[in-house]
Amino acid sequence: MTNKLRIALIGAGRIGQVHARTIVQRVPSAQLVAIADPMPNAAASLAARFGVATATTDCIALITDPVIDAVMICTPTDTHAAYIKAAAAAKKHIFCEKPIALDLGETDSAIAAVAAAGVTLQIGFNRRFDPNFVRMQQAVAQGVIGTPKIVHIVSRDPAPPPMSYIRVSGGIFLDMSIHDWDIARFLMGSDIQEVYVQGGITVDSAIGAAGDIDTHVTLLRFENGAIGTIDNCRQAAYGYDQRAEVFGSAGSIETSNNYPNNTTLSTATNISRDLPLNFFMERYAEAYAAEIESFVLAVTTKSPPAVTGYDARKALIAGLAARRSYDERRPVRLAEFV
Amino acid sequence: MTNKLRIALIGAGRIGQVHARTIVQRVPSAQLVAIADPMPNAAASLAARFGVATATTDCIALITDPVIDAVMICTPTDTHAAYIKAAAAAKKHIFCEKPIALDLGETDSAIAAVAAAGVTLQIGFNRRFDPNFVRMQQAVAQGVIGTPKIVHIVSRDPAPPPMSYIRVSGGIFLDMSIHDWDIARFLMGSDIQEVYVQGGITVDSAIGAAGDIDTHVTLLRFENGAIGTIDNCRQAAYGYDQRAEVFGSAGSIETSNNYPNNTTLSTATNISRDLPLNFFMERYAEAYAAEIESFVLAVTTKSPPAVTGYDARKALIAGLAARRSYDERRPVRLAEFV
Amino acid sequence: MTNKLRIALIGAGRIGQVHARTIVQRVPSAQLVAIADPMPNAAASLAARFGVATATTDCIALITDPVIDAVMICTPTDTHAAYIKAAAAAKKHIFCEKPIALDLGETDSAIAAVAAAGVTLQIGFNRRFDPNFVRMQQAVAQGVIGTPKIVHIVSRDPAPPPMSYIRVSGGIFLDMSIHDWDIARFLMGSDIQEVYVQGGITVDSAIGAAGDIDTHVTLLRFENGAIGTIDNCRQAAYGYDQRAEVFGSAGSIETSNNYPNNTTLSTATNISRDLPLNFFMERYAEAYAAEIESFVLAVTTKSPPAVTGYDARKALIAGLAARRSYDERRPVRLAEFV
Amino acid sequence: MTNKLRIALIGAGRIGQVHARTIVQRVPSAQLVAIADPMPNAAASLAARFGVATATTDCIALITDPVIDAVMICTPTDTHAAYIKAAAAAKKHIFCEKPIALDLGETDSAIAAVAAAGVTLQIGFNRRFDPNFVRMQQAVAQGVIGTPKIVHIVSRDPAPPPMSYIRVSGGIFLDMSIHDWDIARFLMGSDIQEVYVQGGITVDSAIGAAGDIDTHVTLLRFENGAIGTIDNCRQAAYGYDQRAEVFGSAGSIETSNNYPNNTTLSTATNISRDLPLNFFMERYAEAYAAEIESFVLAVTTKSPPAVTGYDARKALIAGLAARRSYDERRPVRLAEFV
Repeated sequence: MTNKLRIALIGAGRIGQVHARTIVQRVPSAQLVAIADPMPNAAASLAARFGVATATTDCIALITDPVIDAVMICTPTDTHAAYIKAAAAAKKHIFCEKPIALDLGETDSAIAAVAAAGVTLQIGFNRRFDPNFVRMQQAVAQGVIGTPKIVHIVSRDPAPPPMSYIRVSGGIFLDMSIHDWDIARFLMGSDIQEVYVQGGITVDSAIGAAGDIDTHVTLLRFENGAIGTIDNCRQAAYGYDQRAEVFGSAGSIETSNNYPNNTTLSTATNISRDLPLNFFMERYAEAYAAEIESFVLAVTTKSPPAVTGYDARKALIAGLAARRSYDERRPVRLAEFV
Repeated sequence: MTNKLRIALIGAGRIGQVHARTIVQRVPSAQLVAIADPMPNAAASLAARFGVATATTDCIALITDPVIDAVMICTPTDTHAAYIKAAAAAKKHIFCEKPIALDLGETDSAIAAVAAAGVTLQIGFNRRFDPNFVRMQQAVAQGVIGTPKIVHIVSRDPAPPPMSYIRVSGGIFLDMSIHDWDIARFLMGSDIQEVYVQGGITVDSAIGAAGDIDTHVTLLRFENGAIGTIDNCRQAAYGYDQRAEVFGSAGSIETSNNYPNNTTLSTATNISRDLPLNFFMERYAEAYAAEIESFVLAVTTKSPPAVTGYDARKALIAGLAARRSYDERRPVRLAEFV
Repeated sequence: MTNKLRIALIGAGRIGQVHARTIVQRVPSAQLVAIADPMPNAAASLAARFGVATATTDCIALITDPVIDAVMICTPTDTHAAYIKAAAAAKKHIFCEKPIALDLGETDSAIAAVAAAGVTLQIGFNRRFDPNFVRMQQAVAQGVIGTPKIVHIVSRDPAPPPMSYIRVSGGIFLDMSIHDWDIARFLMGSDIQEVYVQGGITVDSAIGAAGDIDTHVTLLRFENGAIGTIDNCRQAAYGYDQRAEVFGSAGSIETSNNYPNNTTLSTATNISRDLPLNFFMERYAEAYAAEIESFVLAVTTKSPPAVTGYDARKALIAGLAARRSYDERRPVRLAEFV
Repeated sequence: MTNKLRIALIGAGRIGQVHARTIVQRVPSAQLVAIADPMPNAAASLAARFGVATATTDCIALITDPVIDAVMICTPTDTHAAYIKAAAAAKKHIFCEKPIALDLGETDSAIAAVAAAGVTLQIGFNRRFDPNFVRMQQAVAQGVIGTPKIVHIVSRDPAPPPMSYIRVSGGIFLDMSIHDWDIARFLMGSDIQEVYVQGGITVDSAIGAAGDIDTHVTLLRFENGAIGTIDNCRQAAYGYDQRAEVFGSAGSIETSNNYPNNTTLSTATNISRDLPLNFFMERYAEAYAAEIESFVLAVTTKSPPAVTGYDARKALIAGLAARRSYDERRPVRLAEFV
């Protein structure tokens, strides 16, 4: 038992609950030893549910508690950097939800703190662990489609989040699209060099009133000369739409959506199937588990994590550049943000 | 021009019109020189439509006319055998719609007449020329799926024919299923040895009143030991359903239906596509053309036809055996009909 | 804690391990309190893995232990009936893997013991909980496809089990096909009335030497007049093939296989996807969990179980009738076994 | 006979041959009365093949021949405008292959000549008649997907044309992409307002040496605020790739490729289907016929043509703007070309 990685969960909200379940049920080499959440009862309630011994509202105290080996930071974005620095100072390994921060300077100082401490930091880009994207990335990396030339990513939500969330989200480019900048880099094995955005308000004018947009298509150029597009919309009538294609010199690989079943119904009207799995909790259920397993394995085997602070930084810059492109109506090179 | 195969069409009904168009528009090595149909004006009207010089109501006179090389028999089934014999006696090559006759003796005497005359006889089993079934047969014959073990054939019509047709059709086993007995043999490369039928009336009780059934599934055993099923129904709510699978020791090959377009519509209700091509004229349009091209090529190159009188005989026997199996509620070996 | 259903697992083999994991990880309203297996260390090893307090080699002692509420019987088939009777006598609720016995008399006496004791008995026909078959059954039951007329079931394994297993399996009709007899009844909402089998040895002659066959297609007639086919083979080159279609008066519903991912690869050779999920542990992972949840819910809410002893009895009779049909080469009515 | 639209074909090359066959075989209300081609024997050979009475090398003489009602201009692009003007002056109706010219001024003067003459001009944007794009356009126009927001078009060729063709083609934006600018407008029901291009040489450096590129993805903004992308490549390893999606407020409609058959092969390696129909002659066979039928119907019923000179002008401007965007590495508004 004492050989297990002792993890503290910081933040008992929706994604924190997902990770708690994963550690308890699927990762025998780890143990969830404590939960912290500033909201009264949030940590205690979750701890009771999964038989976790310790619950507290003092996040910093838990992060520095000598009994733990690693922290899992699932709090709101504006606290990530501070908690990463605290954990690094206490020599704890860190799994942190994306993004590290909405600000490049804060992101860099958090990454520097991790580097100085020599601990492991993995970022929660869960889609990298989805069986579909994994399969695509392998095919590209193994050369099955030759030299990759073009990537298309479609990522549309079933419905926009509440306006209260939208207002603190950092905007579509840093909140929703952050996964897509990362998957684009993951699939293509190259950094984004330039973005040009077309977008606007097509779902809800309240989102526009909050200074954000809800729909965009962004044209990308990668460092290796490849081209890409990202299509994001806060609402698709038919549900969660998560697809991609990579086209290369020797072929193409694409993924369709995941469905709750594989039945086809033929009636006098049409030939139909049920709607796709409705949202990220269902679609990426397996990916959420796989990313935690990957983190624990990286720490326990002292291997590099699958998703690094550098990856978080690169996705952040793409989001900042996209926002500038949208605001200034011009192509923006990511080098403007170095 | 004089090198073209001079064809007379006997029977200007629906399928006769299809073949007329094919000869005129798609087979440069043949010429439709005359049309006969006992119905007043039927031949003349069709001849005018395609610029054919001669039209008559006297089928026998046309069959024996020295100016023609070949006849295409598209009249009702009960005239096929007599016309085949007349054509054979006149040394004409023959394309005849399926079946030769509903009676085995008449079938055999027609085949014997053809053999004695040394002319070419091809039977109108058009599905053998459908790109889907052709591709399946090739895969099986080339051993891509190893030794074939099991074949499943689904063949359902969008709606039953008029009762006037049902009454003279010879019954579902000789009318509708005749194609399926033939495709089963074609795909498996082996003759049917035994049939056992489960069936009844599920579409229209008038069909039962006429002494026929409208639905059956028949279990087959082939001479080579393989197994098969044929699923026939006179009505499928979603249209014409024409599918098959051959399962073998090294894999399986199957075909889905043909559709009018390849679009997929995603709405808040479901993910759908349009219904399949509705009936045989659309689904087998290409097959109808290919079978005539094949016949003309067989005659002009003095090669064996793709579908022989033997094939017609074998399909007939399967249909007779199926009827007996249904009537007597027992498995019936085709050897009972030798 | 004391409100949880206290379950003892009897049999720590492959399927026992699956159920142990499910109880521990996915069913908060149940507790796995003990494991028994006559093999030395088997129970202890599994108990250690999931933190279960008690492990023993004495199955009967555990079944009658007052501390438990229910037993989960996962031992070899020839022990099922005895353990069911012991559990019923001790007033324990029972989940038992299929089949109850290979013998109808023993099956009936086990069912009678359960009835006399008034406990719950659920049989492990896991496919009834597969999202695909559930969706099909709902569509049929809700009349979406009108009156069901025909069902086709394809169930092929990736490879045959070891000969040691084949020899004690009861033969393909009672071992492998037992699921299909049950799914046929489940989908159609009607009992099987008659079977006629075509089958033989196409995979491995050793299976024939053991008095069994490895391939069959069986034609079914249901009590309600509907027709069905079941296609079973111990080996499909492309893996685990689990498909079905129900055709009705208003349409059709079918299911394709489940795949490890939804990617499509296009190369100069062809357009391809990866092979289906390879075997039952992967394909039916969700179904295994759902059936245990269903059992616990039935017991705790005092509701009828989703799969009863009657269902086990009906599937057994279909298997016995199929064997007789194969041996005697004739259609066999299930009424012969009443 | 004298009521038929008398058509002269100008240009007996590849596409001219396709149209000749269509008129002769599929359009009973039209008659191909003469063929002109400056290449010796080209017209005569084609005329012989389809039984056309007149063949000449003098295109202008044929265009002005009083015996004809309409001309079909299938010559190289640099002759289109002159022939259109000649035909308009002679009061002939005109079907002209795309584009009218590579130069906007020449395009405008040709359109003006047609308007002044009051004759019908239809442009050969054949994809507008493809059953897939027709179905998509209908769904969009009927509001089935709500307000259209985003369109994605993928159009990749199986292999680049010969360098001799590339050099006079006008470049990828005016040659290959011209269809896509048009389909984008057709599907969205709105004109393109701005383009931004990412592209380069990924197929053959000789194309670059000729001053052209072979790959691009262009981001579009439409007048109605919608967004689009066009993905073009001169080579896809798996063949001709012609797909599109329109995403709207109430759903999405997309089309996949067309295939030579609908069979699926399952082996120990993977689950596969054959490659798509290889190139435009096969993929758009039906569209080529439908566009000629549409033209003849427009002329004979004095209705507006389905594709106008305005459409040709709009597609040309998009191509010119795309080239400028590529050259100057900036978004270009089409208004720059008014």
